[in-house]
Amino acid sequence: MEFFEVIEKRYSHKERFSSTPVPLKDLELIAKAGLAAPTGNNSQCVRLIILPDKEAIKPLYDGSPSQILLTAPAAIALLTDGSVITGKYNFETEDYSASAAQMLLAATALGYVSLWLDSPYFEEEKQKAALSALGAPVINPRYKAEETKERKSENNSGMNGYSLRVVLPVGLPEGEGKRRNKMTFEERVSYRVLGALKD
Amino acid sequence: MEFFEVIEKRYSHKERFSSTPVPLKDLELIAKAGLAAPTGNNSQCVRLIILPDKEAIKPLYDGSPSQILLTAPAAIALLTDGSVITGKYNFETEDYSASAAQMLLAATALGYVSLWLDSPYFEEEKQKAALSALGAPVINPRYKAEETKERKSENNSGMNGYSLRVVLPVGLPEGEGKRRNKMTFEERVSYRVLGALKD
Repeated sequence: MEFFEVIEKRYSHKERFSSTPVPLKDLELIAKAGLAAPTGNNSQCVRLIILPDKEAIKPLYDGSPSQILLTAPAAIALLTDGSVITGKYNFETEDYSASAAQMLLAATALGYVSLWLDSPYFEEEKQKAALSALGAPVINPRYKAEETKERKSENNSGMNGYSLRVVLPVGLPEGEGKRRNKMTFEERVSYRVLGALKD
Repeated sequence: MEFFEVIEKRYSHKERFSSTPVPLKDLELIAKAGLAAPTGNNSQCVRLIILPDKEAIKPLYDGSPSQILLTAPAAIALLTDGSVITGKYNFETEDYSASAAQMLLAATALGYVSLWLDSPYFEEEKQKAALSALGAPVINPRYKAEETKERKSENNSGMNGYSLRVVLPVGLPEGEGKRRNKMTFEERVSYRVLGALKD
């Protein structure tokens, strides 16, 4: 699919998926797009787990039920490996976000719908359950989300464990998904300095 | 350009740009791709400033010199508006990262090269200088980067000001840019559980 058509088509699918399976080669193409994202200091801290069918998703769902995962025929779990992060700054959040964004676009390019699903894993107990379900060692509860604006500080405390950051269900939609209202281009884009219109 | 060709072609251009100008309509297409990115709680906190020529880039360069900006014929500055962020969690970093990733791809799709340039604005004084150069009110030094793993906590402290997050120089390359070595697909992707190979 042409690039800007993909950009236009992508949306966050929060409704049911059809049961049509997703071929493994498509999931691999999506994963490849995720790995091709830019990464701070070339740390490449993103790790992906392909969940090619409902059986593979079920353990993840059991630990942290999300209705959105219930009908998904396939998914990709995005983890970060804190042990590979070096350098003065921690770009973990930037890295996994760029990777997730590229995978959502790739899924769209292949005719699927997807979603950036993260909130089911913010609570420490659910994060641990999800990591266990995915066979990832729960070395240290470095992902200790609190319901405050300070979430990031606790996510990036320099410990060494894996963190489950995002799960992307992938499939065909059962029906048309809802799109949310967006601000206009003019409300968000300026020219030369903030708030200035085009010359 | 076809989506997966764009994914393959994108790289971080850290060398010189040719002086060929970038038409405004191309910069607007890149900005549009940035605004189309997913955003937590639909906050849409990303604001973009199109810097269509060297004259528009110069004030930004004067405050925070980066050799990479010196030859760029155009750029897009990505700011976040902390005042629009609501909800239990702060998804500011996720939002601007997804937006930056989509713009880097869009620049590639149009035949340009670009770069995720952020480190020149991490120091408080340079962040302030850059915000001033861009006409953004320096309400509060909410972007107080420290050279520690804790950077994110200080970035997301719930204050209300604007933050300059990323500058993306856009143009044609003067020569072939260097690509960095990447881990293989097999080193970063598992099936069903972490570390498992394909069935």
